[in-house]
Amino acid sequence: MYGWRMKEGGENVSVICRSNYEAVKENGFSIESVKYGSHKFIPNNVYSTIKDASKDQEYDYILVCTKALPNITNPTDILKPLIKSNKTAIVLVQNGIGLEDPYVKAYPENPLITCAVYIDTEQKPGGIIEHGTMLELAYGLHTNKKDDNLDLMRNSVISNFHNILTSGGITSIVSTNIQKLKWFKLVWNAGLSPISVLSGKYPGGELVRNPGTRKIILNIMSEVVKVGEAVTGGPLHDKLSASEIPEHFVNFTESLSKIFITSMLQDFMNKKPMEHQVILKNVIDLAKGLNISVPTLETMYELLVMNEKKYLEPTGIPPKSP
Amino acid sequence: MYGWRMKEGGENVSVICRSNYEAVKENGFSIESVKYGSHKFIPNNVYSTIKDASKDQEYDYILVCTKALPNITNPTDILKPLIKSNKTAIVLVQNGIGLEDPYVKAYPENPLITCAVYIDTEQKPGGIIEHGTMLELAYGLHTNKKDDNLDLMRNSVISNFHNILTSGGITSIVSTNIQKLKWFKLVWNAGLSPISVLSGKYPGGELVRNPGTRKIILNIMSEVVKVGEAVTGGPLHDKLSASEIPEHFVNFTESLSKIFITSMLQDFMNKKPMEHQVILKNVIDLAKGLNISVPTLETMYELLVMNEKKYLEPTGIPPKSP
Repeated sequence: MYGWRMKEGGENVSVICRSNYEAVKENGFSIESVKYGSHKFIPNNVYSTIKDASKDQEYDYILVCTKALPNITNPTDILKPLIKSNKTAIVLVQNGIGLEDPYVKAYPENPLITCAVYIDTEQKPGGIIEHGTMLELAYGLHTNKKDDNLDLMRNSVISNFHNILTSGGITSIVSTNIQKLKWFKLVWNAGLSPISVLSGKYPGGELVRNPGTRKIILNIMSEVVKVGEAVTGGPLHDKLSASEIPEHFVNFTESLSKIFITSMLQDFMNKKPMEHQVILKNVIDLAKGLNISVPTLETMYELLVMNEKKYLEPTGIPPKSP
Repeated sequence: MYGWRMKEGGENVSVICRSNYEAVKENGFSIESVKYGSHKFIPNNVYSTIKDASKDQEYDYILVCTKALPNITNPTDILKPLIKSNKTAIVLVQNGIGLEDPYVKAYPENPLITCAVYIDTEQKPGGIIEHGTMLELAYGLHTNKKDDNLDLMRNSVISNFHNILTSGGITSIVSTNIQKLKWFKLVWNAGLSPISVLSGKYPGGELVRNPGTRKIILNIMSEVVKVGEAVTGGPLHDKLSASEIPEHFVNFTESLSKIFITSMLQDFMNKKPMEHQVILKNVIDLAKGLNISVPTLETMYELLVMNEKKYLEPTGIPPKSP
């Protein structure tokens, strides 16, 4: 969806496809969007491998739009052929915490943009994309030092990216405190995703309406808020206090008119790896370092890993690696 | 198993059977025991209903050997035809906490014996009983006032019961603090049972050997010990300290040579109601009253209820009633 809008905005967009390669190579993507209507997205180039995509090309921006599974493979390895100089910016279009560390380590000279992703979409087989109404990207330069006075728009990598998104009609939010936005978003994700799997496969609405699971969701969210505030060194929201954030997200979930199946539950039902590392484990590890107790997160995490092991181990995918 | 040994010890034993009635009426029970070998148990009477069992009969002891599911039906209702005077003692051969309250309320004049049950057995269809090596019963009179100086053996209901068990070769442990023994036993049960279901159906051994789930099991056990000590007003064990009890049970589970499938996991796999009320919910409610935080127990309980709902609701069994 982001690539399509960038191309519509006038950019040269190449895509690397996996299972949908043949279909996309042949026909492009078919987009069915509530917001935009029906469209075709024909990328400038369609590749089936990173190696092919790297031939005679150097990119300004690489958008990493895969699931974040650093527990299964080092996500930076596959990018190697694409990174030919420090002119290429890496954009992590992924939710979750602690995603950036491997990239900083592997490509210390390349600009790294990290995001809070707001999109309601699903890709069906054969390059068919169903999209709702949301298409926003909040992002910032990932730097190891915090600097609230940093004028990000004076950074050309960021200001160009802002122009590209805006030209494509994507709501672009440049943030000097992107981790705060990522943690805020994580509160919802961590609260709803694991329980949607572990409760026995329920949609979000049912889980927040049921008083028992609502309580557990609020517990998880409170634990995440506590860790997030300690890690980012401030409140996660300008208007909502720490104690209001969980209620806010639970009420928001309750108000959704569409049946809300978390992407973690979709992965579980499709027997695919779940993003428990960046949604739970990295949070638990940070909490440990800060001496914050997160018993509910720990419980959910260990239960998820065991459930995943049941279907991943027979396929040879290691469910948990150091 | 207890009924069989009582009959062997010289008592008159009647049984009320449900799905196995026809088989037991015809052929009695076939017992395959590691401890006792192969035997037939022909009860004095075999009934298919409580009503039939109550005709022209008054019993000295009624052993309640069903699962404890007070969340589904009031367990005392079905006993009514059998309780003709205060001479009949009710013996709850059930593990779990808070079982006694409905009986005290329904039959305040009848002696109530409550137990910690130590038996490794499984009933197969058709009255076939497989038994291992354990056959112990620890029990005491359920009284609402605590009295450590109470000489239970001077109580004829208890001393007769002790003689009956002993004559049958059952290890009989009379306790003036039976709740302490029940809580101690509950630590193991609460620690292993819910996680064996929620982790995705693992045997106990795997769960204690896996460091992640071992940690969660220890967390749950610590929460139960804390509540148990507060409720019983003292340590749960004479030699093990509160902090040693969880490790004790985890090591014990690790040492078991047989694959250990909890009875809760058996119920889950057979789509039967699980004993989450007496193993978790009653503990959580007691903790609440005492202002003790039990986040892991709460999480496990709510997840269990939701998982159970998935298979119970279509059958019309209400999974949770007030």
